[in-house]
Amino acid sequence: MISEKMYELGTKKSTIRTIFEYGRKRALEVGEENIYDYSLGNPNVPAPDFIKQAIIDILNEMDPCDVHGYTVAPGNPKVREILAKDINNRFGTHFTGKNLFITSGAAGAITIAFKALSEPNDEFITFAPYFPEYKCFVESVGATLKVVPAKIDDFQIQFDEFEKMITPNTKAIIINSPNNPSGVVYSEATIKQLAQILTDKSNEYGHPIFLISDEPYREIVYDGAFVPYIPNYYANSIVCYSYSKSFSLPGERIGYIVVPDEVADFDKVYGAVAGAARVLTHVNASSLFQLVVARCAGKPSNIAPYEENRNLLYNGLIEAGFKCVKPEGAFYLFPQSLEPDDYAFCKKAQEYDLLLVPGTDFGCPGHFRASYCIKRETIEKSLPIFKKLAQEYKNK
Amino acid sequence: MISEKMYELGTKKSTIRTIFEYGRKRALEVGEENIYDYSLGNPNVPAPDFIKQAIIDILNEMDPCDVHGYTVAPGNPKVREILAKDINNRFGTHFTGKNLFITSGAAGAITIAFKALSEPNDEFITFAPYFPEYKCFVESVGATLKVVPAKIDDFQIQFDEFEKMITPNTKAIIINSPNNPSGVVYSEATIKQLAQILTDKSNEYGHPIFLISDEPYREIVYDGAFVPYIPNYYANSIVCYSYSKSFSLPGERIGYIVVPDEVADFDKVYGAVAGAARVLTHVNASSLFQLVVARCAGKPSNIAPYEENRNLLYNGLIEAGFKCVKPEGAFYLFPQSLEPDDYAFCKKAQEYDLLLVPGTDFGCPGHFRASYCIKRETIEKSLPIFKKLAQEYKNK
Repeated sequence: MISEKMYELGTKKSTIRTIFEYGRKRALEVGEENIYDYSLGNPNVPAPDFIKQAIIDILNEMDPCDVHGYTVAPGNPKVREILAKDINNRFGTHFTGKNLFITSGAAGAITIAFKALSEPNDEFITFAPYFPEYKCFVESVGATLKVVPAKIDDFQIQFDEFEKMITPNTKAIIINSPNNPSGVVYSEATIKQLAQILTDKSNEYGHPIFLISDEPYREIVYDGAFVPYIPNYYANSIVCYSYSKSFSLPGERIGYIVVPDEVADFDKVYGAVAGAARVLTHVNASSLFQLVVARCAGKPSNIAPYEENRNLLYNGLIEAGFKCVKPEGAFYLFPQSLEPDDYAFCKKAQEYDLLLVPGTDFGCPGHFRASYCIKRETIEKSLPIFKKLAQEYKNK
Repeated sequence: MISEKMYELGTKKSTIRTIFEYGRKRALEVGEENIYDYSLGNPNVPAPDFIKQAIIDILNEMDPCDVHGYTVAPGNPKVREILAKDINNRFGTHFTGKNLFITSGAAGAITIAFKALSEPNDEFITFAPYFPEYKCFVESVGATLKVVPAKIDDFQIQFDEFEKMITPNTKAIIINSPNNPSGVVYSEATIKQLAQILTDKSNEYGHPIFLISDEPYREIVYDGAFVPYIPNYYANSIVCYSYSKSFSLPGERIGYIVVPDEVADFDKVYGAVAGAARVLTHVNASSLFQLVVARCAGKPSNIAPYEENRNLLYNGLIEAGFKCVKPEGAFYLFPQSLEPDDYAFCKKAQEYDLLLVPGTDFGCPGHFRASYCIKRETIEKSLPIFKKLAQEYKNK
């Protein structure tokens, strides 16, 4: 009577959602202040004042028909020019508006890229730990997602495993750096090696393998970490960006796809992006927020609160005896669980009202994700609890 | 290398777009004021002041994290409650927030409904003249669109032709009233007869046939015309709504789907809607505009300028000798072309700088669409030109 597949996708709760909802119920029993909810990746830094000011200025200065009217499908041409220049200023690229397609956030951008590229029997490859919605998005366009196991000592890439997975059916690789859930940034050496392998394999198979860079966390980096801009390292790159994190606008669904001129057969790829956006009905992202991000292009992200949280939680966990790769970006820690079964570990942590997400959900068992985009006081209060939890494991 | 199908969809220009772009070029040659562009259905009435005020109030009163944060996938629960109450007030229904799923405009709503419902070999049926994107949306979910020929005397429904087209594979019927391109509103008698046939056929085949009502023009009606609210006439209805026209917010992509409790297997249908929204990455429509439409729920649409334009253009065309069903809604006229070949007619009109869209593009040859959501002065200036064009045909 209906699509059973869609029903399943719409009703099967994710582990994250289940944990979060448990936390809401539990908070009613024991009080909000006694729940340490590290489950959701929802920015807790408010959108900067310049966003509010930009909205008000636009409403006061412009004709409402221009503010709220349809834009052309790829987005307001002036906005695309401004965003292209901003990218060029920062990364030394040479894009113009015609390289950009404005989308409803990064999720919209990624599904459009998948749909634009995929032909029957296509395979996409990503690297554990990875954002679990990739699998659902890739499968929804009729392709297959293959996952390279995690390199758990530093969460860079296991290149030998990766090379074994590439086949003539490999359409594209998806990377996400700074990474959700590990917080790790791929080093320049990693990107160079990745680009070399893809160049060699593309030559071997006689068709391009695309590199899709999903980078909503690009600006959320600490200690001056360098995040290589992918099109500067590999020609057949597609960048998927969102302002959800950098400007704390996750609910406004505003981002873009970059298709560089260097991509093999640019017109075909950009045309296919436009077609995919059309059938996914993602043409014309919010016209007001297109104008807002153009006015605010180049303005800084407020990362200080996240960096403080990272330091506090990372140092606290290390002190409590956890092992964790120190992340340079995003707002997640991805430590090893204190027993190999990460589900059992997270269940145990839940007894202490510490709400953590099992690494298995990100394709990386034996770990857990802690989202630290929460109140500093919650982290402070949780540190002795993490110690107690660790103590219980030591006493076993 | 890429999806050829997506490339085709993204690069093949629609007739409307081709005509519009011709108009832009032609305006550079002869001056904007000498082009009578009736091609686009873009609201020219600005968003009402209460929209601007609502945005500013929300920004001043609320925490930015609440304004711009993620909402749950079906949309802000409080917003859904308010919108449900507004619908109940107007149409005597009894919806709550759980019957609504907020979407990125009506296009998003329609594709979600199609994707949620369709199984392999499904057929959808609509009535000419119809919005041409339906075909593209239906085919993109792997189903087939069948089109019942137009009833050209009044643009209601040819029920005998319709009944012949229904098969056990018919999943849903799509109606659009007030209609794009005819402007006609389906009468209560039409809706009752449609509901009766669907009830009978559902019983005959032993499964429900859904009725999807695409109604972005619901509030754009004249002469006090009555637009029946479909769930009051047929249980298995799904309503797709958008604020694009009623509040002149086409660029903000804000609308909703209604799944009434009366729908067979409500939980399954609503669940499938959620799944389809997920893979089409339409979860969480703009969080700011969710709040805005909730604050403005029940406020009136400014239809006076459209009604004036309708009267001016309709009377002018009748006086010039055109035949046209007088429309009661939307902002389109759909008169007969002055020769059977509507493409040839629109080409001839173009020589007079009258930019009209051939009816064939809406599944209804021998007609043309004139979108009158344009400046009143343009219509005034164009009337003598329409007369000249009609005179040329008379002199033939």
